[in-house]
Amino acid sequence: MPNNINNNISKNLVPEPALRRMPCYLAFLKLAKGEGLKYVSSTQIARNMDIDPTQVTKDLSYTKIIGKTRVGYEVDSLIDVLETFLRFNTMDCGYLFGAGSLGTALLLDHGLAQFGFSIEAAFDVNPDKVGLNIGGTKIYHVDDFERVKKPNVRIGIITVPMEQAQATADLMVEGGIDAIWNFTAVRIKASNNVVVQNTPLYAHLAVIFNRLHSK
Amino acid sequence: MPNNINNNISKNLVPEPALRRMPCYLAFLKLAKGEGLKYVSSTQIARNMDIDPTQVTKDLSYTKIIGKTRVGYEVDSLIDVLETFLRFNTMDCGYLFGAGSLGTALLLDHGLAQFGFSIEAAFDVNPDKVGLNIGGTKIYHVDDFERVKKPNVRIGIITVPMEQAQATADLMVEGGIDAIWNFTAVRIKASNNVVVQNTPLYAHLAVIFNRLHSK
Repeated sequence: MPNNINNNISKNLVPEPALRRMPCYLAFLKLAKGEGLKYVSSTQIARNMDIDPTQVTKDLSYTKIIGKTRVGYEVDSLIDVLETFLRFNTMDCGYLFGAGSLGTALLLDHGLAQFGFSIEAAFDVNPDKVGLNIGGTKIYHVDDFERVKKPNVRIGIITVPMEQAQATADLMVEGGIDAIWNFTAVRIKASNNVVVQNTPLYAHLAVIFNRLHSK
Repeated sequence: MPNNINNNISKNLVPEPALRRMPCYLAFLKLAKGEGLKYVSSTQIARNMDIDPTQVTKDLSYTKIIGKTRVGYEVDSLIDVLETFLRFNTMDCGYLFGAGSLGTALLLDHGLAQFGFSIEAAFDVNPDKVGLNIGGTKIYHVDDFERVKKPNVRIGIITVPMEQAQATADLMVEGGIDAIWNFTAVRIKASNNVVVQNTPLYAHLAVIFNRLHSK
């Protein structure tokens, strides 16, 4: 095992590509379980993902699970270990900023709860939105953020118009949010201790359109 | 200019990372326009994105726009060129498979229309969903796909439960869909001439959770 892996484990800094692959491993394992499989090997997982088996072994080593020679990983155990490692079976709360079209859509999508995420409250500036309850989540005015904010809520979703994206991020960070899930196309600036993840729907569309029309 | 760029231009194969960055450039340009800027340089764009200016110049060369020495790119022209290049100002249609929680959310999000994408029809197997109209889109039974399908609709969104993801992809491809936008955690298998883009919300959550709790 190369040294940097040991360093990463001790610092808890699992590389981002590994973290991104793990939910796919989990999906594969759940499908395998549904088909009655008791054990899967890293080779089987790797073949499904079209990657190298050593990559799978390396990724799974962060969870500290150890496969058995010849038989591989026990499916039930590996599902448990991955769900715990990825924190999909404990609930983290977040706030949503911008209850427009995409924001409303996310408020109505309760699928994220299966991955351990729930939206505690939402904020908007539109008087027609403030006071509403969308999918069980109350919409407050942005000015009420400081008053409403609870210390256990550390994640903030940005679905505001792009003109407001950076100012919203600043407001969130000032209010104690230290992880930003950004759905806008704007590059969010924040200090290094703030986690920023971008989910650029339009970037994926750009690739689809280009490849489709390049045929 | 290295040779491979010329080759990519002639084959229309713009690298995926470049395509993914372009919508961010576009967002930056629109914000710059809103602030009254007439020209921006590749250095300004690069500074905003935290990347190298030569990367910006290289990416923008795919659109064939040429910046002016010292002043840079004209903001209005570059917005037009990028929107046309990314096909955000012409409408592409798609079908959605799986009108559950996330599927319904996407049907209600009309924001994608701003990026040149609209959902023409949706398909589900749930008798409670079939026949409904969600956000202006009719829900059909999956068995009606062959009958309903129009040849100009080439994009299919997958928001079905993961157990049905691969079978749904197979059905779509058999019906003539040649670009799949997959929102499940399942690795979709399709022949090389089918475009597959994954938007793994849970993968982004996994990174947020890990980084947040590693602090």
